[in-house]
Amino acid sequence: MNGAESLVRSLLASDVDVCFTNPGTSEMHFVAALDHVPGMRSVLALFEGVATGAADGYWRMARKPASTLLHLGPGLANGLSNLHNAKKAGSGIVNIVGEHASTHIALDAPLTADIEGIARPMSAWVHTSLSTADVGADAARAVQQARTTPGRVATLILPGDTAWTEGGAVAEALAPEAPERPDAALVEEAARALAGEGSLLLLGAGALTEENLALAGKIAAATGCALMSEWANPRTERGAGRVAIPRVPYPIDLALKALEPYGKIVLLGAREPIGFFAYPGKPARLTRPDADFVPLATAAMDTGAALEALVAATGAAAKSALIEAASLPDLPPLSPLTPETIAPVIANAIREGTILVDETVSSGGYLPAATKGAPQHSLLQNNGGSIGYGLSVSVGAAVACPDRKVLALISDGSGMYVPQGLWTMAREGLDVTIVILANRAYNILRGELTNVGVQNPGPRAIDMLSLDRPTLDWVSLARGMGVEATRVEDTAQLALALDAGLEAPGPVLIEAVM
Amino acid sequence: MNGAESLVRSLLASDVDVCFTNPGTSEMHFVAALDHVPGMRSVLALFEGVATGAADGYWRMARKPASTLLHLGPGLANGLSNLHNAKKAGSGIVNIVGEHASTHIALDAPLTADIEGIARPMSAWVHTSLSTADVGADAARAVQQARTTPGRVATLILPGDTAWTEGGAVAEALAPEAPERPDAALVEEAARALAGEGSLLLLGAGALTEENLALAGKIAAATGCALMSEWANPRTERGAGRVAIPRVPYPIDLALKALEPYGKIVLLGAREPIGFFAYPGKPARLTRPDADFVPLATAAMDTGAALEALVAATGAAAKSALIEAASLPDLPPLSPLTPETIAPVIANAIREGTILVDETVSSGGYLPAATKGAPQHSLLQNNGGSIGYGLSVSVGAAVACPDRKVLALISDGSGMYVPQGLWTMAREGLDVTIVILANRAYNILRGELTNVGVQNPGPRAIDMLSLDRPTLDWVSLARGMGVEATRVEDTAQLALALDAGLEAPGPVLIEAVM
Repeated sequence: MNGAESLVRSLLASDVDVCFTNPGTSEMHFVAALDHVPGMRSVLALFEGVATGAADGYWRMARKPASTLLHLGPGLANGLSNLHNAKKAGSGIVNIVGEHASTHIALDAPLTADIEGIARPMSAWVHTSLSTADVGADAARAVQQARTTPGRVATLILPGDTAWTEGGAVAEALAPEAPERPDAALVEEAARALAGEGSLLLLGAGALTEENLALAGKIAAATGCALMSEWANPRTERGAGRVAIPRVPYPIDLALKALEPYGKIVLLGAREPIGFFAYPGKPARLTRPDADFVPLATAAMDTGAALEALVAATGAAAKSALIEAASLPDLPPLSPLTPETIAPVIANAIREGTILVDETVSSGGYLPAATKGAPQHSLLQNNGGSIGYGLSVSVGAAVACPDRKVLALISDGSGMYVPQGLWTMAREGLDVTIVILANRAYNILRGELTNVGVQNPGPRAIDMLSLDRPTLDWVSLARGMGVEATRVEDTAQLALALDAGLEAPGPVLIEAVM
Repeated sequence: MNGAESLVRSLLASDVDVCFTNPGTSEMHFVAALDHVPGMRSVLALFEGVATGAADGYWRMARKPASTLLHLGPGLANGLSNLHNAKKAGSGIVNIVGEHASTHIALDAPLTADIEGIARPMSAWVHTSLSTADVGADAARAVQQARTTPGRVATLILPGDTAWTEGGAVAEALAPEAPERPDAALVEEAARALAGEGSLLLLGAGALTEENLALAGKIAAATGCALMSEWANPRTERGAGRVAIPRVPYPIDLALKALEPYGKIVLLGAREPIGFFAYPGKPARLTRPDADFVPLATAAMDTGAALEALVAATGAAAKSALIEAASLPDLPPLSPLTPETIAPVIANAIREGTILVDETVSSGGYLPAATKGAPQHSLLQNNGGSIGYGLSVSVGAAVACPDRKVLALISDGSGMYVPQGLWTMAREGLDVTIVILANRAYNILRGELTNVGVQNPGPRAIDMLSLDRPTLDWVSLARGMGVEATRVEDTAQLALALDAGLEAPGPVLIEAVM
């Protein structure tokens, strides 16, 4: 067995059975191994950002890692910004990068680069296999790392000769280290804090599963504390019958206002709230200067155990959590598409089990309120802030959950960073409905210009934030990549297109002109 | 004056007057400064790889650096693979990256990343400005670095507060260090080597200007040595009336054969030839094991001075170089499009001064012979091997040379890595004709499968190298980004479309189905 085959067999032994790939010459033996070894689903991407973003989305929904297969330093570089988002989301990814044969690296060939150096800023673990005999065991370690709570980007670099040489060995799966449980004294301190006035339980990361939210709801019922989640969360279970919690707003002034009431804040899978950016003359920390924090559990700890302990300490076990009733906003009368008018239309389109991928940037402000009583759904957001994640994450979510509908809400500016995911959706027949929110501008930046203190931006500055010269035609773009598409310009057309898109089994793109 | 304005004014003082940009919040003050300071042409890209690739193409044609303006670590990451290509090509780029305000970095905001760490693998120089007062001087140093022979990627990282705070100062231009001249003893040794049997003068980098090629031609006439250039070169002046030199072939067996005759090789702007990849059972070095090298001048040295010295040492000053006569291949009879049939059609389309951007990968094998007697043109190739450079480099070349036609030959697989350059071409009305060579496969990899020793690849391996499920529709893709497009399927249609495309003043895309 050569090293390539030992890699595939070891990944399968560790229950990694999906590979999102854009291979090159140095990966040809891995590609060949796919024919010898049954069980690994390989999904081709035309750009590496699709592969890494898909692996991110796959982790969030499958709760186990996928692998990638990327081509040397530049291929890894192309996948880096979505690895950044995955890292910030705590997604586990076995990120495999081919390298030149060991003997070739020193010759500084055209594609030679410092792969470890490129990988390190976005990876929790980086390792280069030294010989064929190591490849299987290194793969098992990479999976173990990827599975470490909350999930890690583990980059394994495989020189070509470790792939093509005989002497590979299949490695058994390695259990990840169990996540740390919360300190008992901190649990008591948190319970005391939450029982007081002006207290907030701030949740993030793994705390937003259905079960954990139910526990948080009991705690709120027992203590009277407020519940809130971080601005962005990798996956939030939402909808009728679940505990709904508001998010810290993105705009700095709204965030300051939302957090102003709280003097005691328990952090559970969340961090102390800070501004997305620094703004001149505004505080970096979003909480009151006198706020006390109880750092009960980080995202890397066992957030479920922390919530259970907190339920016990607050005597909340028998309490009833406030759960969201089923309710949908009325459909607006026939209207042009605006952030306000699209929200009820989208809320009404959500079906039981829909995976809602949110990359709305400036167009999504009305969605949380409109959708909170919708049928139960999973909400995936971007923790890393690097726009261009939504289409790729949707690919991975759809591969992970072929029986669920994916509804991707993508701003036009965001979608253009990594549009190539559309082709993979068509190739794999993935059940994704994409709504492109086409305001034809980097609209968020128009607000940010003012926020950072730019007075009276001139025409050249405004022009740098405009995407209307030429207008992007998303219907043509989608068709160019084999995805059916339609353009809508009012709420009635959007509602019809959403119904048709969600009914269709494969990908459909809707360009919503705002 | 705030730091942002001092940046723009200092770049202008150093003769950097083009900025390829995809800005975000942390760069808003620089965007605003464009309105206060006349003279900087800002070109918006929808993806950072377009900006970095455009800066590469701009350098090659303008012979001076452009700047970029990228958004934090992930924005830089998106531009990294084309920076890799620029680094390998020796292109000078002032790569400017916004960073969080100094006070914000430690808070680990969503977009926080190790920007210096991300930049380092692809940059010759990396610096973070420490205060507003430093920004202007740091910009001048970055330009000085970018201009250092043969050209360097200089990354300047600017924390937001250095941009928005008052106290900026405009810096004067700094002269780059003069490139080293060749050692006199080595010149003599090179002259002796070239006078012998089986000698080769291998050229690369700056040695391929029209003037330098003329000097090389004289040396060949005086000594009888062969002339050859590296497989890929950042810019080669070619066509009727110039000295034509063959390139080392890409396929390893052909390369070994082409270099077999030579026992004495003088390197002038070139490196010892090595395989693009390592292939099992084949040598990594492409020259005879007994070949002697004279390392006369690296790419970082004064290649023109080296050639002049070699002309003197070989007594070649009065010799006549063999120059290429004007000659064009006959147009083939009406034929389907193949690598062999497209070459004469393209050769006949080349006009005086055309800039030919070559990203043909497997489809370009017949082009060098077909085009060598065509009207004078500049050939831009990819030294870094990371495909997805061609459309972006074409943007920069067209911005640098508005009075010349750019003809970009792009393989379909390559074009899909960074297709967003099409939108910038439309926005700026750039005079680029793009031919997409649509063989609907990663065809080069089918050959590489065999080269690396994979026997009988199975259907799943072949499927990973196929781009025909679904078929990419480049006409739709181009129109989606505002570029006129047409599809051709035979040589007559291609010839007509090329004429029309080159006649039109703006961008036109031709999908050539092979």
